[in-house]
Amino acid sequence: MNRTCTKIQIYDTTLRDGAQGEGISFSVQDKLRIAQKLDKLGVAYIEGGWPGSNPRDAEFFAAASRMDWQFAKLTAFGSTRRAGLAAEQDENLQKLIAAGTPAVAIFGKTWLLHVDHVLKTTPEENLAMIRESCAFLAQQGREVIFDAEHFFDGYKDDPDYALAVLRAAADGGAVTLTLCDTNGGTMPVDVFRICESVRAAFPPEIRLGIHTHNDGDLAVANSIMGVRAGCGQVQGTINGYGERCGNANLSSIIANLELKTDFSCLPEGKLAELKSVSSFVDDLANVRHNRRAPFVGDSAFAHKGGMHVNAVQKDPRTFEHVPPEAVGNGRRILVSDLSGKSNLVMKAAELGFDLKKSDDLGKLLAVLKERENAGYEYEAADASFAVLLHKLFGKWGHYFKLEGFRVIIEKRHHDGRTISEATVKVSVNGISELTAAEGDGPVNALDLALRKSLERFYPEIKEIALADFKVRILDGVNGTAARTRVLIDSTDGRNTWGTVGLDDNIIQASWEALVDSVEYALYRKNIEPVITDEKLDD
Amino acid sequence: MNRTCTKIQIYDTTLRDGAQGEGISFSVQDKLRIAQKLDKLGVAYIEGGWPGSNPRDAEFFAAASRMDWQFAKLTAFGSTRRAGLAAEQDENLQKLIAAGTPAVAIFGKTWLLHVDHVLKTTPEENLAMIRESCAFLAQQGREVIFDAEHFFDGYKDDPDYALAVLRAAADGGAVTLTLCDTNGGTMPVDVFRICESVRAAFPPEIRLGIHTHNDGDLAVANSIMGVRAGCGQVQGTINGYGERCGNANLSSIIANLELKTDFSCLPEGKLAELKSVSSFVDDLANVRHNRRAPFVGDSAFAHKGGMHVNAVQKDPRTFEHVPPEAVGNGRRILVSDLSGKSNLVMKAAELGFDLKKSDDLGKLLAVLKERENAGYEYEAADASFAVLLHKLFGKWGHYFKLEGFRVIIEKRHHDGRTISEATVKVSVNGISELTAAEGDGPVNALDLALRKSLERFYPEIKEIALADFKVRILDGVNGTAARTRVLIDSTDGRNTWGTVGLDDNIIQASWEALVDSVEYALYRKNIEPVITDEKLDD
Repeated sequence: MNRTCTKIQIYDTTLRDGAQGEGISFSVQDKLRIAQKLDKLGVAYIEGGWPGSNPRDAEFFAAASRMDWQFAKLTAFGSTRRAGLAAEQDENLQKLIAAGTPAVAIFGKTWLLHVDHVLKTTPEENLAMIRESCAFLAQQGREVIFDAEHFFDGYKDDPDYALAVLRAAADGGAVTLTLCDTNGGTMPVDVFRICESVRAAFPPEIRLGIHTHNDGDLAVANSIMGVRAGCGQVQGTINGYGERCGNANLSSIIANLELKTDFSCLPEGKLAELKSVSSFVDDLANVRHNRRAPFVGDSAFAHKGGMHVNAVQKDPRTFEHVPPEAVGNGRRILVSDLSGKSNLVMKAAELGFDLKKSDDLGKLLAVLKERENAGYEYEAADASFAVLLHKLFGKWGHYFKLEGFRVIIEKRHHDGRTISEATVKVSVNGISELTAAEGDGPVNALDLALRKSLERFYPEIKEIALADFKVRILDGVNGTAARTRVLIDSTDGRNTWGTVGLDDNIIQASWEALVDSVEYALYRKNIEPVITDEKLDD
Repeated sequence: MNRTCTKIQIYDTTLRDGAQGEGISFSVQDKLRIAQKLDKLGVAYIEGGWPGSNPRDAEFFAAASRMDWQFAKLTAFGSTRRAGLAAEQDENLQKLIAAGTPAVAIFGKTWLLHVDHVLKTTPEENLAMIRESCAFLAQQGREVIFDAEHFFDGYKDDPDYALAVLRAAADGGAVTLTLCDTNGGTMPVDVFRICESVRAAFPPEIRLGIHTHNDGDLAVANSIMGVRAGCGQVQGTINGYGERCGNANLSSIIANLELKTDFSCLPEGKLAELKSVSSFVDDLANVRHNRRAPFVGDSAFAHKGGMHVNAVQKDPRTFEHVPPEAVGNGRRILVSDLSGKSNLVMKAAELGFDLKKSDDLGKLLAVLKERENAGYEYEAADASFAVLLHKLFGKWGHYFKLEGFRVIIEKRHHDGRTISEATVKVSVNGISELTAAEGDGPVNALDLALRKSLERFYPEIKEIALADFKVRILDGVNGTAARTRVLIDSTDGRNTWGTVGLDDNIIQASWEALVDSVEYALYRKNIEPVITDEKLDD
């Protein structure tokens, strides 16, 4: 980015406000790993938790204080002192100091509705709580960030009181005043207007922050509006985790600021780590990656329509608003029944097939259409797509013959255990092998038995391991009788490939994906098949 | 809504542009059902497809023309005539007319980059293509909507040419000129500025439309900015389906316009259908419902933090930007290890338990924490949570004793079929019942066998059916040996309840969820259990 850009601070609260999201929870270890990743990305502040509310957060800060931080200031979060108590006697504030972070953030009430109904104190006592809490923390040498909760709702209700709240925090020694759209319902034009008038009311050495939520689907726009109106700090979470509809999504805000505005928010050269950070956080939170996520999603630069694929080949700017590499993402060409011929030709060429002969193309299109209608999905199953291409165009063979398999799952009365046992019988060049294996579940048992049965013939199989296994029930309305699609990711330690299986029966669907995976691996190692397959009937 | 509001037209393209989204495809039947649902909601236009590109879309329009439409105009989509061809000879335009819709939308190129590199024609011929195509369609009695593709990129590149494109369409007879942010990268301030200047360049009888994509995470804000700058039509898709990061999300735009602005876009009283429409479209597209979706998501009004739950009880406005009922959604109180005591007390009270006794609460918190750490999730498994509460506080009994089960899945060599067979042995009051059932897969077989074995003792079981079955692999990195969580939704035709099971073994996890489901159903029918359970050990 151009170094003449105005610098904006990124304040990450994935570990605190993000963890309020439905289905999100982090272990202390997860939090430490995420914090290190965020520091490496170059965010300015990492809000690690609320030591007064969660005992595990104190553990996090203790561990974090022994680590080195390059770019980020660790920040502990808490509330102002309780009503009617001296700040130095407040246990919450004591715990904030005990966290030992260079910066602390405390929130206070800005909206009189909350002061009256929730806090149940007077407007004056609320101001005193804010001023005295900030002063106490500042006297202890902390950099104080004041989060004005419900700022925009409060300002709309009573602008004078909302400004008095900010003034109390600044008088107490807060250096940053963060304007929070806590309920997430404010419109961009109002955010801009209100931020502008707050900016005019404070001297430039007081930094304003903007903290928005996504209840109106406007959190990213509202954050950018705040920056345009003079806020120098943006609070949010990676991937927009957070309560209800989530916090402002930093993955989008960072990319927009860096690529689309005269503001800059990361150190030079860091933006390309964005997708990796986003995936890392999803993985540790065990959250399904949002394919459609702007900038960092797997679909963000995926092209499906035939005409679009054509145009992107000619000039990427035709259907890409930014270069995918800028954020560490990449372009993908999708295989689908809606895709035009140019997609398929490109994808097939990647796999070494020249489909320019028009009858081959038509045949592939017809087969794909039929299979996708049935429920197959090749977008994530590149190896199954390769196998399909080989089968269609007469270049595929099998590495073994299946004589049969049987899986037994039994809940035994005498010890209450449930055991899974699979028997697989295969033959290779007339030599039969019957093996059995126990597993943690039926698919695990089947996978182990299959690989065990083949090791005698193909020792290379030992290198292959399953990396991921996903089950999707395709037609939920029929309950368990629904069709099951299984996606398997396999690895040999260097490469990863995906395969798909589909059946009414989860075990048969898994089998199909396992066989594709094993055979594709052997093919990739240039091992000759033993059975030359008849062509797939179309 | 206040009838003095300015009326904005909603133009839905879920069935056309939405179907370009990765993983989205609709059958003709799906499309007809969605179109009817959208008409009932009261959108102004339904873009049903592109008859020139997809033969199944012609089928859709043929069927749709025989149906009644109350609010919406069916609209067929296509492109302008090809370069160097007379409009009446263009097959694409012929197919648009053949669709028999009252309105047609055609797109044309606005950005010279596309005219040069993709269309490979002259700027003048492009203008002629647009003008003549609009004129041809208007002469055939169609209401013509012109989609100016890449309008904002084109305008930034060459504003005079972009306006000339719009003028060509208006000269040809288009009544609506839609400004498209096709690549989705434009910032809200630019959308506003450019829409304002276009508005000033055309007389008021020409309507402007705004069509945005979400590549910058700004599509909803950009649509609203367009409306504020004078656009009278908003194009988008339900739930934001669409290529790459998706189109502008109509679920959010409709709610924002109706609840937050002086614009109105639906007939009186229809807004409360919004969540139902959103879920319906997800179900037919077989897309996982986005919990975090603004307004319509299951988490949109879900409260997890203890303090927030407390405040919402006192006054919902404290943490809800709009009343959930306004969009047909509802408030939810979440059970979670992060939740405070007030959540649990409220949730337990809903189920008839008074947890004000502090040691009961502490015990429940400890058990929940342990179970959620292990991988259980009670947010969607209300019935399992109820069973857990009953077990913990000594009020639960069992309806049968399991003697054992066995499931066999066998791939038979002689006919290649995979069969699943389950045997279940239960006893009730000392009377044993051994049954077996075949199913479409192991879980289906086990469910059928269990219910068959119990019907003799509890005929009420016949009413119960599985409604949905979800499998989540919790720790993907270990492949198939990962832990499996199964969520089951059951119904008796009136009520629906959710249960959860967790195990290394998918069959055992399913069994756990099935047993909770069946026993909860019998309990709800006030049937007495036959085995009084020992208290759950904590």
